[in-house]
Amino acid sequence: MAERYFEDFTVGESIELGSVQISAAEIIAFAEQFDPQPFHLDPARAEGSVFGGLIASGWHTAGLYMRLFAEGVLNRVPSFGSPGIEQLRWLRPVRPGDTLRARFTVLEVRPSTSRPDRGIVRSRGEMTNQDGEVALSLEATNFFGRRPSDPA
Amino acid sequence: MAERYFEDFTVGESIELGSVQISAAEIIAFAEQFDPQPFHLDPARAEGSVFGGLIASGWHTAGLYMRLFAEGVLNRVPSFGSPGIEQLRWLRPVRPGDTLRARFTVLEVRPSTSRPDRGIVRSRGEMTNQDGEVALSLEATNFFGRRPSDPA
Repeated sequence: MAERYFEDFTVGESIELGSVQISAAEIIAFAEQFDPQPFHLDPARAEGSVFGGLIASGWHTAGLYMRLFAEGVLNRVPSFGSPGIEQLRWLRPVRPGDTLRARFTVLEVRPSTSRPDRGIVRSRGEMTNQDGEVALSLEATNFFGRRPSDPA
Repeated sequence: MAERYFEDFTVGESIELGSVQISAAEIIAFAEQFDPQPFHLDPARAEGSVFGGLIASGWHTAGLYMRLFAEGVLNRVPSFGSPGIEQLRWLRPVRPGDTLRARFTVLEVRPSTSRPDRGIVRSRGEMTNQDGEVALSLEATNFFGRRPSDPA
């Protein structure tokens, strides 16, 4: 059952989504499947790269945000998917052992003009590391179901 | 060894990056790790969703583009990472059995003003399904190494 509906989100509201730690093994496993660049795959070659050591694929960091966003927000509302993302930014390298804390902040809410059952929520997502540095930010657009009206 | 350098990319150039087929098992495995929404995780619940069946996480489709982009472009140049992505768009649902063909098109090239060893390449990435429909598009920014000058 939905805990919240489109109407319950207000501009400026932030929700802390919890945190996740990332290991070298996870970084390498992700890179093997989705981003086989030497600085994501191979600690020795990563040492000699511009990053000076193994770093996570930015898509991996985005996926970790997505998991926390799904668990903390999307799976608690009627969710009708997303048309896309703006301004996906990889601001700091993410390294083995880093702990990333996720936060969701509402940027804009507006009812859909074409679909009366839903509204559009635009949000900023951020992942901040254990040193307080923002490692990832993005702007997401999502369709959330509106609160069913009481039978009159 | 690098096959290409920053100087070898020209605006308007397109590179076909090959294709990949996606299975229900892969869709579910990705969703369990990174996007645990019912329409990505559970065929039965996906049937009853707005999508009418299981669909891939948009982050999964993006990761498949990334793999083909890394293999076909990034691992053939001196690559210094990426600051981020604009206009990531999930234009069509991706379903089990779909085959996605990736294409990279150069939108802009410019030398870095702060780092003489590299240039900035902005590109459009697209994944097109077996019916010729664009399922994913994005605009990527990447730093590519410049061709070493001949010793004079």
